[in-house]
Amino acid sequence: MARLSERLKNLHGSPVRAMLMAAQQPDMVSFAGGLPAPDSFDDLDFPPPPISAMQYGPTEGEPALRAKIAEELAGMGLNVPAERVLVLSGSQQGIDLVAKLVIDEGAPISVESPAYLAALQVFRFFGAELSTLDPADPARGWDVVPPRLAYVTPTFQNPTGRCWTGAERLALAQACQANDVVLFEDDPYRDLVYDACDRRPVASLMTSGEWIYQGSFSKTVAPGLRLGFLAASEGVFEKLTYLKQAADLHTNRLSQFLVLHYLNDPNRAQRMGKLSGRYRERRNMFEAAMQRHLGGLADWKSPAGGLFFWAELRGGLDAAAVLPRAVERGVLFTPGVHFLVEGGVASSAMRLNFSHASEEAADRGLKVLGEVIREMART
Amino acid sequence: MARLSERLKNLHGSPVRAMLMAAQQPDMVSFAGGLPAPDSFDDLDFPPPPISAMQYGPTEGEPALRAKIAEELAGMGLNVPAERVLVLSGSQQGIDLVAKLVIDEGAPISVESPAYLAALQVFRFFGAELSTLDPADPARGWDVVPPRLAYVTPTFQNPTGRCWTGAERLALAQACQANDVVLFEDDPYRDLVYDACDRRPVASLMTSGEWIYQGSFSKTVAPGLRLGFLAASEGVFEKLTYLKQAADLHTNRLSQFLVLHYLNDPNRAQRMGKLSGRYRERRNMFEAAMQRHLGGLADWKSPAGGLFFWAELRGGLDAAAVLPRAVERGVLFTPGVHFLVEGGVASSAMRLNFSHASEEAADRGLKVLGEVIREMART
Repeated sequence: MARLSERLKNLHGSPVRAMLMAAQQPDMVSFAGGLPAPDSFDDLDFPPPPISAMQYGPTEGEPALRAKIAEELAGMGLNVPAERVLVLSGSQQGIDLVAKLVIDEGAPISVESPAYLAALQVFRFFGAELSTLDPADPARGWDVVPPRLAYVTPTFQNPTGRCWTGAERLALAQACQANDVVLFEDDPYRDLVYDACDRRPVASLMTSGEWIYQGSFSKTVAPGLRLGFLAASEGVFEKLTYLKQAADLHTNRLSQFLVLHYLNDPNRAQRMGKLSGRYRERRNMFEAAMQRHLGGLADWKSPAGGLFFWAELRGGLDAAAVLPRAVERGVLFTPGVHFLVEGGVASSAMRLNFSHASEEAADRGLKVLGEVIREMART
Repeated sequence: MARLSERLKNLHGSPVRAMLMAAQQPDMVSFAGGLPAPDSFDDLDFPPPPISAMQYGPTEGEPALRAKIAEELAGMGLNVPAERVLVLSGSQQGIDLVAKLVIDEGAPISVESPAYLAALQVFRFFGAELSTLDPADPARGWDVVPPRLAYVTPTFQNPTGRCWTGAERLALAQACQANDVVLFEDDPYRDLVYDACDRRPVASLMTSGEWIYQGSFSKTVAPGLRLGFLAASEGVFEKLTYLKQAADLHTNRLSQFLVLHYLNDPNRAQRMGKLSGRYRERRNMFEAAMQRHLGGLADWKSPAGGLFFWAELRGGLDAAAVLPRAVERGVLFTPGVHFLVEGGVASSAMRLNFSHASEEAADRGLKVLGEVIREMART
């Protein structure tokens, strides 16, 4: 028998991955992934890349792209020099790099619950002990076990869609500073905004201490490009660059070239407004269909941005038990249990993506969900 | 003070990285990197990618690309179904994934010495205890401390350019099988072949046990695309797929599309022949210039493939001591010490890349090297 790493005991296939594979069946209505609308790519153009982009490039990323990202960050209130921007092969990579930076076996890490499941998976793989971070009282328990890292998605969180208040943002920044906790702020949804909301980066509110802020072009340009970035405080940036180099040398230059082209496009603001407008409409239509088919069966809040509804079934119905019956009838969603920090607890929540399915498919899928839930509530 | 991982004690900036940054100065002649010739990209074309490539894709890679790679592997004697091919964001990523698969703190790993330095760095970062693998007697010492992994580059090794004999390949395959050692065969240079040489994958000679074979499109298409792949035995493939998903979800689809386009190009064999021919010429010109300027000062073997000369200075001169003086005079190379498994040992070897510098620059750079070495030998 080959001898493999102890760490593998914490390695499990992603339930989302299994679901995405199921979703490739024809006629399956999927609310499971976080896929952009297929028609959102229609107005992208692809100028041929310069031949110089074929050669090896710098680990940190293309200088012009880093400068442009730093300019964007300054516009959000996060002032960081271009020299502390690291281009990533998608923001999932940022999670891997930060886990390597911070986590040893048994290291305490504070995360929202529910939270992005592929982040929880990576943290657990590296051996983290996860505890729940409550936005209303972020430092609770930190005097007993000070965590090394606080991982949060304050703006249109995945899965809940929640947007933190300004006071919550400030409290977390101060708590991280006071307790020497590294802040890891994941912000892939910020540009998909439908209602007014405080979106100021928590990282911008820190006046000392270490922080990593990361963003993604998967939701605003195209996920197939696998392009994201992080910016970080001086005390950790260089280490993250070394870790990036060890992980894949540098990010592919075609995607960097295309995203820079997109960021410099004079029509960009207009395109972004159109995209948000289209998603806002989808959210509204989706919610109307939820009212029709899940009204009285589940409770939810309308998300001010992002890609998901987080609906909690009434009567304590276990959403994971609903899933197999829904799949049988051609509908996929992600049960809330996968996003929880606590193990072995059932969840009545369903994460429903509203960006990918067409209006007609969404209505059909939600109708099936309503029927399945009614049947199960009866038995 | 922020609390970071213990692992970071093993994290160091790459000396190659520092050198590549220095190499960006104008007029610097660099023999340091492993960069393809700039004109090798001239005949690449870039059809616009299909819009479907913008969406999230499968973790394993595009099915058509995986099938094509499996077909290529079968042609080399390595029979593996397309379902066990994993597309990578460059083969550096394969090293990260395999390290996660196998290495715990203190895990014994067997590697050639010298070996690819960025592999040594990753293995050390994850806490491996490295021991030296001798191709002439691969299992030496394995009865005392059986390693978990044997990492080798049998074909046109980086840095030595060495190509293992058929007998050596077979002996390693058998040793891995007999001792339950996972084989990790890194094969990025195999298509840059200038003289006849046994290139049969060691993995193809294993009839049981676990193995990972990886290849790269950085040397045959373009490194800026960051595209590589691995194939693996059944017992480890799925775990590597999970690790890939946790690392970056999937590889960018633009590069996958372009490499598949290239692999299906009817002119590909002709292009590859031209590329090898051009590099063979460069090797020959470079060696002639070495004869002129380093004759009597160093010894080397002409590599049958790949991108490097490995030259050992006579009289025990420390190549690392030569480097600063060479840099002062505008010439870069990589001192052998960085490729060694043993720490704290000086090396008289220099790794000299012959693919990137022009003939004129190579002559000028080698002349400077000869002068510096002569000066140092005198003092």
